[in-house]
This record gives sequence, structure tokens and C-alpha cells, in this order.
Amino acid sequence: MSLNKDRRIGRHAILLLLSDHPAEQLKKLEQSKWKGCIGKVGSMDAHKVVAAIETAAKKNGIVRSDVYREMHALYHAIIEALHGITRGQVQIGSILRTVGLSFAVLRGNPYDNELEGDWVAVALYGTIGAPVKGSEHETIGLGINHI
Amino acid sequence: MSLNKDRRIGRHAILLLLSDHPAEQLKKLEQSKWKGCIGKVGSMDAHKVVAAIETAAKKNGIVRSDVYREMHALYHAIIEALHGITRGQVQIGSILRTVGLSFAVLRGNPYDNELEGDWVAVALYGTIGAPVKGSEHETIGLGINHI
Amino acid sequence: MSLNKDRRIGRHAILLLLSDHPAEQLKKLEQSKWKGCIGKVGSMDAHKVVAAIETAAKKNGIVRSDVYREMHALYHAIIEALHGITRGQVQIGSILRTVGLSFAVLRGNPYDNELEGDWVAVALYGTIGAPVKGSEHETIGLGINHI
Amino acid sequence: MSLNKDRRIGRHAILLLLSDHPAEQLKKLEQSKWKGCIGKVGSMDAHKVVAAIETAAKKNGIVRSDVYREMHALYHAIIEALHGITRGQVQIGSILRTVGLSFAVLRGNPYDNELEGDWVAVALYGTIGAPVKGSEHETIGLGINHI
Amino acid sequence: MSLNKDRRIGRHAILLLLSDHPAEQLKKLEQSKWKGCIGKVGSMDAHKVVAAIETAAKKNGIVRSDVYREMHALYHAIIEALHGITRGQVQIGSILRTVGLSFAVLRGNPYDNELEGDWVAVALYGTIGAPVKGSEHETIGLGINHI
Amino acid sequence: MSLNKDRRIGRHAILLLLSDHPAEQLKKLEQSKWKGCIGKVGSMDAHKVVAAIETAAKKNGIVRSDVYREMHALYHAIIEALHGITRGQVQIGSILRTVGLSFAVLRGNPYDNELEGDWVAVALYGTIGAPVKGSEHETIGLGINHI
Repeated sequence: MSLNKDRRIGRHAILLLLSDHPAEQLKKLEQSKWKGCIGKVGSMDAHKVVAAIETAAKKNGIVRSDVYREMHALYHAIIEALHGITRGQVQIGSILRTVGLSFAVLRGNPYDNELEGDWVAVALYGTIGAPVKGSEHETIGLGINHI
Repeated sequence: MSLNKDRRIGRHAILLLLSDHPAEQLKKLEQSKWKGCIGKVGSMDAHKVVAAIETAAKKNGIVRSDVYREMHALYHAIIEALHGITRGQVQIGSILRTVGLSFAVLRGNPYDNELEGDWVAVALYGTIGAPVKGSEHETIGLGINHI
Repeated sequence: MSLNKDRRIGRHAILLLLSDHPAEQLKKLEQSKWKGCIGKVGSMDAHKVVAAIETAAKKNGIVRSDVYREMHALYHAIIEALHGITRGQVQIGSILRTVGLSFAVLRGNPYDNELEGDWVAVALYGTIGAPVKGSEHETIGLGINHI
Repeated sequence: MSLNKDRRIGRHAILLLLSDHPAEQLKKLEQSKWKGCIGKVGSMDAHKVVAAIETAAKKNGIVRSDVYREMHALYHAIIEALHGITRGQVQIGSILRTVGLSFAVLRGNPYDNELEGDWVAVALYGTIGAPVKGSEHETIGLGINHI
Repeated sequence: MSLNKDRRIGRHAILLLLSDHPAEQLKKLEQSKWKGCIGKVGSMDAHKVVAAIETAAKKNGIVRSDVYREMHALYHAIIEALHGITRGQVQIGSILRTVGLSFAVLRGNPYDNELEGDWVAVALYGTIGAPVKGSEHETIGLGINHI
Repeated sequence: MSLNKDRRIGRHAILLLLSDHPAEQLKKLEQSKWKGCIGKVGSMDAHKVVAAIETAAKKNGIVRSDVYREMHALYHAIIEALHGITRGQVQIGSILRTVGLSFAVLRGNPYDNELEGDWVAVALYGTIGAPVKGSEHETIGLGINHI
């Protein structure tokens, strides 16, 4: 039931996000049986961040949009990642702040046991701050769920 | 007032945490005017996680323990990082889960403008789960504050 | 000071909500000195859920709209019920989800002691999920307050 | 992808909990391909509530304790149900209150589509209040997750 | 239904708390049909803060301990006041901080309309910080409820 | 490192807010090396409350808008004060309530030790309630941060 050291899905997702060459990095992961995608979203609306990640994950075949359990797993992973981004209230513009984020979604089995099946990791990295250029600091979030 | 691309304190702190050679990595950072330290803590008590990070930061001279504003800055950065770890309620054992975490604390000025002075980043990475070996997944948190 | 087994206001409110014949069920309750009303509301705005319940309770004479203490008691019971519905952040559309709810409001004294006076129960039952048909699961909430 | 009207897992779990004859009710559900169990727990410690439900679900074969994804699904369903019980902070004794709860765990597929696989519902019903006999009111919670 | 300018219960409670002569101040309030009490509590346990205030309010006849609706009203006012004190998570020692608080409880009708009946205000003022002398700043909280 | 009894910044900020002659009171404070400002804001949008306080603090020279660390310190003090106002969810209109607030921002060193430098206190006092005249009660909040 242990996490496989080489298949730590959260670590892979974050390193992908922080990579200088994310597209190449993603290709390598895809060769090791991971499915994944990356993207960017900037917004004062939390629901737009959720939508951007859901859309990218569906378009890239990470999750099946016609199977609710897959969308449900992804949704909760996104909201958990947003907790790390927002640190207290999952609110952005409604408390006068804005985010500029890169995101990575990764799917695969991080455990030794095949019965564990697929899991999904949503990693977010970027800035949060006042809606004034430069008035911002970095922020990160990671959500992981069984799928 | 912009974030300096080479001095993104949060990114540095997380990469340090995920590095295969954190001690060497930390040395390099220290040569570029950053102060930093790394450590590990596993617990079911959130207050022990806070204490472990505070103690390491004080011992390594990252913050001055006799200046409350420095401890106050660090404390809030730790609690913000714990939001990413716990994703909802800053509780561990009280809702029957446990964490095994590595932490990195980094101090320096991530902005172009010298007036911005020092900031502190607290990065946490590890696992969270049931108090049963293997019943856990990864988790990450980042807190950033002016000091 | 004990709860009267036959007058458990929360249990009555939920059974009313889940009943196949809520109108008849409500009539029976009204014959036993309870005041109550039922209704439906679907929305992505939490404030519209609050408004729908408040309006129904006022129109049906469950609370007096000209006595703030009654509206205050009802409001907090509604918000408490919404905690069960939303499980973490009292937000709906702002984190890209929608609800379709039935509600029941019940008023009366659930205790043996007459001094306990009236209490109000707000029960909510329905679905929560993505704004896509079928991408949803059930949800329930109950708020109880002295009035 | 729709919820099947006859297989609303949350509704079944709550009615089971509020039933005057829960054991018989549970038997009927088990004849319709549901797995389920019921139990009771009273405590000032949230972690004991979590443990009691997890133990009952494992003992009764509702979840497999050697497959983390099953325990992970159950854990989050429990915590979500506790949000309805605690309405704000998932804390009991630490803010001087106590709970006396019945719980029901139900597992099965509530959707028309077989691809949706199994889901788990955790329903909680009982009282919450001061640690003084009678100083309490009812409370309810429901958590639902894909498994 | 308006708040009476001279009978703003929250303002009275806070001024009582910040007064240099609280005992005299309290006497004056008691001559204007208010019931009230003041006290002090220092702790790392939120439940001890709750208990200290409840005990003082009962002993001084502000609330009747044999009428649950009165204790229920007071409890929620205390928890609301603790939100102002803790600003995010109603936790003290569990996230390694401590409080030293003065409290005031006041009961009476702050509205022009007699039908509004009695309300209760719980005001808290003091310091919060690390369990190290001097590593603390001020904090305040106010909870108001109909009784 | 102790708080100086005469320089309790939070106490000063709240007394300023509750004063019958706030302008005169503010002048006295300014003669004792405090910087401060007062203002009013009524809204159903939390972000408008934040904006009103930020704008007043910038216009009155309490904080420098071109130094992010100052804006960052102020922002977090405002959000902390809003926790006292909203007591649970930092939401106003989105859960159908409205606020009418006075605010005071004060800057200076409340500690004996000069090394503690400047801190900022944001105090809020007013009413919260339904968007119906008179259906409201008082509310207070205080946020304190190093600057």
C-alpha cells in the first residue's frame, strides 16, 4: 500500500509546474504511463480558475467528462489545491485580491499496489496579491484524490 | 515593486525541499544572500509542527527570537503553509490524521526594490493520512510574509 | 430540560423533507402545535437560498418579519444548515457548483420544559454538483436555533 | 449519468438512521445490492467519532482496509458529514461541547450508469451541546464520495 | 425595530472592558436595567475560555443555567467572540499560541421595540501570541445573540 | 519585548472608533507619534470594505502605496479585522447580509523595544444584519500586524 518513491504524483506535478521546460518534462512523464496537462489562468474569480483546470483536463483526456466520479475526483482535488493558494477563505476577488497561476494536472497510480488504481494531482503555482502590478507574492497549492 | 524572476523566494524554498541534495542546494542559496534552513517533523499535533519550524529558524539565525516582529512574521507564514497541508481545518490528530513533513525556511528580498526588505518563506512537503503505514498521500504548503 | 422524544424538531423537519407526501405530513405536524412550511430553491447564489427560505417562513407566518430576534434566529439556523450542504466553505457558484434543494422550516418547543419556548429548525435536502445535468450528488443540512 | 431515483444513497442512509427499526431496514437495503452498517458513538473528541465509523465500516466489510483509496474515500465522507454536525469548526470538546451520534455507512452505485461504480455515504444524526445532560439540540450530517 | 443609540449593548460591553474602572462602570450599567459581569481568563485551551465565561455568567445571574435556550444563546455569543480573537481557526494552544483575556457579558434589550426582549453581548479583549512573555499583540472579539 | 501599557495600539484604535469626538481624539494620538485615520463604509461587498480602508490609509499617508510590504501588512490586518466582523465566513452580501462600519487605522510602535518598529492596527465597529433597516446588531473587529 506504500507510496512508490519514483511515482510520487504530487512531487512530479509540482516539479513539472516549476520546470523551465514544462512541455518536455510532461512528455517524459507521459512516457512513464502518466497522463497530464499544463496550463495558465489569471482571475479574480475562483470559479474561473476551477473552470480553466476542468476544461484543460477534459480536453486533454485526463478525465472523462461523461463519468461523474472522474469529474468529482478532479473537482475536489482542485478545491483542495485552492486552499493552499488562498490560505483561509477560498475567495479571491471577493476579498480584493487576484491570482495569476500556472497549473498542472497529473493522473496515474503513485502506489506499489496495483489495486490502488488511478489518482489525480492538481498543482497550482503563481502569484496572489492586490489587483495592482507588483503588489503580489508567490503561492502554491496541491490537491490529490483517488479517481 | 516587481518580483525579481531570479529571486522568487517561494520557488526557491520548494525546490530546496524537493531537491535530492538539499544541503548543497541550501549552500548555493546562502551564497546568494539568502538565509535558510531545512528540517523534518512528523506529528499528529499541529503545535509540534509549528514548534519544530520555529526552533529550527531561531537556531539557524533565520529570525531573531528577541524581536517579536520577526517571530510574528514567521508564525503567520507557518500557519499559512499549514493551510496548504491541511486543506480546510488546521487540524491533524484531532481529526485522526498524521503528517510526515520536510520543511524549508528561507529569508531574503524577492523584489527588485530594496525598500521591500526581507521576506520569509516557509515551505512544507510530505505526506498526510491515517495513522497507518502507507495510508497517506502527498501534501504541500507555502506561506510567505514580510519580516 | 430534556429533549422530548416525540418532539425532536430536527428529525421531524428532515422526515418532512424526505417524505413522499410532504403536504399531508406537514398538516399532521401542524395539528400537533408545530408551525411549518416547505419549499424548493435551486441556485448558484447562496444569498438566493437564504432569501427563498426567509421569504417562505415569513409568508407562512413561521416567523414575524417585524421582530428582529425572530429573523435573527431564522438566519443563523439557515446558515448552519448551509454548512451541512456546502461542507467547508459556504459558497456555491463562486466555486463553480450549483444546488437544487428542498427545504423545510419548523417551529415549536422540542423540550419537556415549557420555559424553553420556541425553537426553529431549518432542514435542507437536495443535490450539489457541477452546473452540468447529472454531475451531482445528494447533500443535506440542518440548523436549529432558539427563537 | 443521472442519479437513480430509487437509489439515492444519501436519502437511504438518513432514513436508515432515523428508522425505528434500523436493523430490519438495513437488511432490506442489503437485499438490493447495498452494503451498509450502523452504529453509535458519543464523544468530545472528533477523532474518536472518525475512528468509530472507520472501524465499523472495516469490520462490516463496507470498505477494504488494505486498499488506501477505499479508506481515503471513507475518511473524506466522514469529515464532510462532520461539517454538518459541527457547522463551522470541525471541533467538539476543544470548544466545550459534546456529541451523541448514530451513524450509518452505505455503499453502492446511486447512478443509472454502471461506469459510476461504487459510492459511499456517511450519515450522522444525534445531539450536540454542552457537556450537561439536556443542554443539547439535534444535529445531522451527510458526506458522499466516490470510492 | 431600530437599535437604540443609548442602548448599544456591544459598545457598552467593550467600553466596560476597556475601562480603567470597570467595577464602577458596571454598577452604572446595572442601574440602567442591564445585567452584566466581568472577569479574566488566560489559557491555551479554547474550552477553558468558554467555561470561564459560562461560569461567570451563571454565577452572576446573567443567564439561567436550568434553561437551555439561555445557555445556547450565551454559548454562540462566546464562540462568535472567539472568532474575533482567533481570526481564522477557533484554536489556541493546538496551533501553539496562548491568550490572556478580560471578558464582559452584558444582557438587556438594545432595541426600541420591547418585543425584541433580551439580547446578550460577550466582549473579549486581551493579548494573543506565542507562549513566551512579550511575544503577543492585542486582540478583541464581540458576539451578540438574542436570548 | 513587552507591550507598552500606554501604547496599546489596538485599545487606542478601538477607543478612537467608539469616541464621541473621534477627530479630536485622533489629533491627540497624532501628537504622540501615532499616524492614523478614520472613515466609514457601508456595503454588501467585502472587497469594497477592503478598498475603502486601503484607500483611506494610502491617502492619509499611513502606509506607502509604492512599498508592497506596507500594503501587504495592511491587507492582512484588514482581513483579520473582517474575521471579527463576519465571525465564520468572510462573506457579506453573498450570504445575504450587509454591514455599516466605521473604521480606524493606526500606525506606530506599541512595544518598549524600538527594534519592534511600526505596527498597524485596523479597528472596525458598526452593524451587521439583513438588508432591511433595523434588522441588525453590532459587530466589531480588530486586526494587528507588523509593518
